[in-house]
Amino acid sequence: MIRAKIRLFVEQPLGQGQGIALSQAHAHYLANVLRKGTGTQVALFNSRDGEWLAEITEIGRRGALAICLGQAAPQRMPPDLWLVFAPIKKARTDFIVEKATELGAARILPVQTEFTNSERIRQDRLQAHAIEAAEQCGGTYVPEVAALKPLTRVLQDWPEGRALIWADESLADAGKPPALPPAPAAILIGPEGGFSPTERAKLRATSGVHSMSLGPRILRADTAAVAALTLWQAQQGDWP
Amino acid sequence: MIRAKIRLFVEQPLGQGQGIALSQAHAHYLANVLRKGTGTQVALFNSRDGEWLAEITEIGRRGALAICLGQAAPQRMPPDLWLVFAPIKKARTDFIVEKATELGAARILPVQTEFTNSERIRQDRLQAHAIEAAEQCGGTYVPEVAALKPLTRVLQDWPEGRALIWADESLADAGKPPALPPAPAAILIGPEGGFSPTERAKLRATSGVHSMSLGPRILRADTAAVAALTLWQAQQGDWP
Repeated sequence: MIRAKIRLFVEQPLGQGQGIALSQAHAHYLANVLRKGTGTQVALFNSRDGEWLAEITEIGRRGALAICLGQAAPQRMPPDLWLVFAPIKKARTDFIVEKATELGAARILPVQTEFTNSERIRQDRLQAHAIEAAEQCGGTYVPEVAALKPLTRVLQDWPEGRALIWADESLADAGKPPALPPAPAAILIGPEGGFSPTERAKLRATSGVHSMSLGPRILRADTAAVAALTLWQAQQGDWP
Repeated sequence: MIRAKIRLFVEQPLGQGQGIALSQAHAHYLANVLRKGTGTQVALFNSRDGEWLAEITEIGRRGALAICLGQAAPQRMPPDLWLVFAPIKKARTDFIVEKATELGAARILPVQTEFTNSERIRQDRLQAHAIEAAEQCGGTYVPEVAALKPLTRVLQDWPEGRALIWADESLADAGKPPALPPAPAAILIGPEGGFSPTERAKLRATSGVHSMSLGPRILRADTAAVAALTLWQAQQGDWP
């Protein structure tokens, strides 16, 4: 089965002969941005049923219809790795969500910390960034972007058996880091100002916490997120 | 010796009792952005003499003067790793330079490829980004951002003995990648459209070329740069 170049994430189930209603945004993108009409082949995925080759059968101002021709690639789930991070400036937060999706995070959890600047996030906008990144990177899975929660509450409710890997700035020069724990796992990236002494104590007291070093320079939060996800994927994830 | 929080890169030699003329831009930043005056302590570095604690002795519209009080940290050179990359959209190119500096690249070489969009770069602006990133990340070294050159010319003049590590998209699912070569080395990141068949053939024919896999998803060029630098630093660089 050939793989179409235009990739769209949809919510509906995908299957042989299945008709799919595309959103107004997708119709606009196809007709006005890409200048495509009926007969155009697209790839559809929904995080569950793999990638399907589909053909546009109708297109208008309010939406479009497509019909599934056949499965082009099987569903590929990322390893069970979460990214827990403190949102920073808008562009860098968008960037973290985009990169976490490309790097195969299974779930993205924004948290408020004592030194976090952001009191709230636009969860829908961040989720849209994750969808766009998945469409772009050829994956068949879009990680959920969870609602913003205080770090303390996330730590209180931490699921038993899930390792929490903390990129600890104080380890900058601390010799060879230990091997990273396997899935289920989560990477925690603090805000630009680091964690408060109280938060550091709570982290140390949480069971399943591992710390990791990210080298001798102080990385920005967005760099740290990409670096930590990369190291985990290379050691314990799907690379390969 | 205490380390000051305000870090400034200067060109001049640093040494005990040395007077340093700061630029108009630094004077503006100190006086108008940070609202600091004479007596303020700053950290100065120049990529050669380590980090020096200095005190502002004069400040005006046209510049400022500082005097070196003592060395606060030794010079720390990054490993001999270059980043060779094809510039992409402006924000993502800026981002690559910032991240490469934070991640300890020793030199940054923008190259034109067949599928590169950019015909030119603002070398001075990219160099300024590298300086800002070094000031921010606590390093004492600013990598040089070289002038834009065609990839073919860079490959023709490739220095003997320097490994060229190519993040090859076609290796996405190709089993465990081999260990990365040690310094002197360079990482090569292609443009969004990948390398042309001719370029791929030239790369394969260049001596000292290694390829590396960056997992099963197709990474954007900026993500690939950060991921590749991270993997090399963790395997062969200064982490730790």
